[in-house]
Amino acid sequence: MPLINRLAILGVGLIGGSLARILREKGEVGEIVGIGRGADNLRRGVELGVIDRYEHDPGEGVKGADMVFVATPVCTIPGITAAIAPFLTPGAIVTDGGSVKEEIVDACEPLMPAGCHFIGGHPIAGTEKSGVDASFSTLYKGKRCIITPTPASDRGALEKVTRMWQLAGSEVVLMDPVKHDKVVAAISHLPHMVAYSLVNTVGDYDGCDENILKYSAGGFRDFTRIASSDPVMWRDIALQNRTAVLEMMDFFSGRYAELRRLVAAGDGAGLEEFFTRSRQYRESIL
Amino acid sequence: MPLINRLAILGVGLIGGSLARILREKGEVGEIVGIGRGADNLRRGVELGVIDRYEHDPGEGVKGADMVFVATPVCTIPGITAAIAPFLTPGAIVTDGGSVKEEIVDACEPLMPAGCHFIGGHPIAGTEKSGVDASFSTLYKGKRCIITPTPASDRGALEKVTRMWQLAGSEVVLMDPVKHDKVVAAISHLPHMVAYSLVNTVGDYDGCDENILKYSAGGFRDFTRIASSDPVMWRDIALQNRTAVLEMMDFFSGRYAELRRLVAAGDGAGLEEFFTRSRQYRESIL
Repeated sequence: MPLINRLAILGVGLIGGSLARILREKGEVGEIVGIGRGADNLRRGVELGVIDRYEHDPGEGVKGADMVFVATPVCTIPGITAAIAPFLTPGAIVTDGGSVKEEIVDACEPLMPAGCHFIGGHPIAGTEKSGVDASFSTLYKGKRCIITPTPASDRGALEKVTRMWQLAGSEVVLMDPVKHDKVVAAISHLPHMVAYSLVNTVGDYDGCDENILKYSAGGFRDFTRIASSDPVMWRDIALQNRTAVLEMMDFFSGRYAELRRLVAAGDGAGLEEFFTRSRQYRESIL
Repeated sequence: MPLINRLAILGVGLIGGSLARILREKGEVGEIVGIGRGADNLRRGVELGVIDRYEHDPGEGVKGADMVFVATPVCTIPGITAAIAPFLTPGAIVTDGGSVKEEIVDACEPLMPAGCHFIGGHPIAGTEKSGVDASFSTLYKGKRCIITPTPASDRGALEKVTRMWQLAGSEVVLMDPVKHDKVVAAISHLPHMVAYSLVNTVGDYDGCDENILKYSAGGFRDFTRIASSDPVMWRDIALQNRTAVLEMMDFFSGRYAELRRLVAAGDGAGLEEFFTRSRQYRESIL
């Protein structure tokens, strides 16, 4: 018997489509219903065999589903969850793929009708592409998926969501939503804020007689790649995880000010210590 | 006839060794003399055919060379150039591979005896490895090499150094030393300062009940790679290019403060504009 009888996916793109593909590949899902607004993308999803059928109306789409995966942009998740809640089948589990968790879990958990359960999730995987055509069944293989239960979470629902991501190939980590938001603020959101600032620094710089961007090479190219991520998505992440992002941005400012002071003072020993510390941190995670 | 009759290389590592290899491969050098302190590395250079022979004494090593390449750490270049100057053969050209140019060119140009010429250079290429074993003949292929003549530079010497790097496969760009230092401060030194600060931020962070470094993924891994570069080399670069590095660090601080303000204010339109600007800068260089 498959883990899921009917899976409803809101947002059949890279994230939603890839989960559909792997669960189907593993024979762990009966039927997959895609829900979204773009008919072309949904038809393409059927053509590719990623979904079996589709609905444009969210309430209609989730009917009879025992698992609902909300894979839409982070700021739309609470609204969509509110819209589908009245149409959920008793026992249904709703989970999401949003990269911010406290706001989403706080908003969505209380929306569930009796007997239905919301479990927040965040698969840490992605590429720069989007749409169902970009989806592939190994997207989650070997990646981490953070699931963020609360004291109110249903045990059985938590276990089923955990199992689903393990079947997708992910290493599941349980974490409370507030801690999740701090962790991703540090390892993902802050690096993006820094990369965007850095690329704008070099692009805006007018202290030479020509634009110096054209000399970019090596390390700087890595930053420009990160800083070309979707501006709308990152706007929403910065807004939704504002508290943790600001905390980490300020923590960075402290380190950066320390380094500036060492450079200004010509403090060779201090600089070497500062740079060596980074290298040791890297070695600690290799 | 080869471009160079006798090439003396001070520092037979990745940078020096790779130049030796490609010039020999192209048949553009008669004899190659390696100069350095580490006998094992130099013997290995002979074994590999990278150099023909070696000397430990710099003065002895440069005798009879028409081209001298100083490929030692950036802070040692002026001292080494002072040490070899009295032993140069009339007509000899001395060039270097240091990633900071104003201080080096200002120091080295006046050291040249009559008829000898110093031309500053900076091949923008490298890997994380070092030593002659890490050298390979295609290191410079398709990479940029910035050469920094001054109004006092000898035309013929400039042309010969330019030709040498073109033979190595590089695209040569001429730039005055001050501008060079600003450009590399922006596209290379600042990204390193930012990456080191970012890794230390995440590593130092103690606001969770465990070290969050272990969750690092994706974008953050790119930063940790940059931030694992040699601490001593980066100490020296930060010290030698202090003025330009501080200017760029402060310019970054302005952008970063702008972004922090937008996040704190929850200014969605401003955030989207800030992130879109980065993406446009990236597109302008692709």
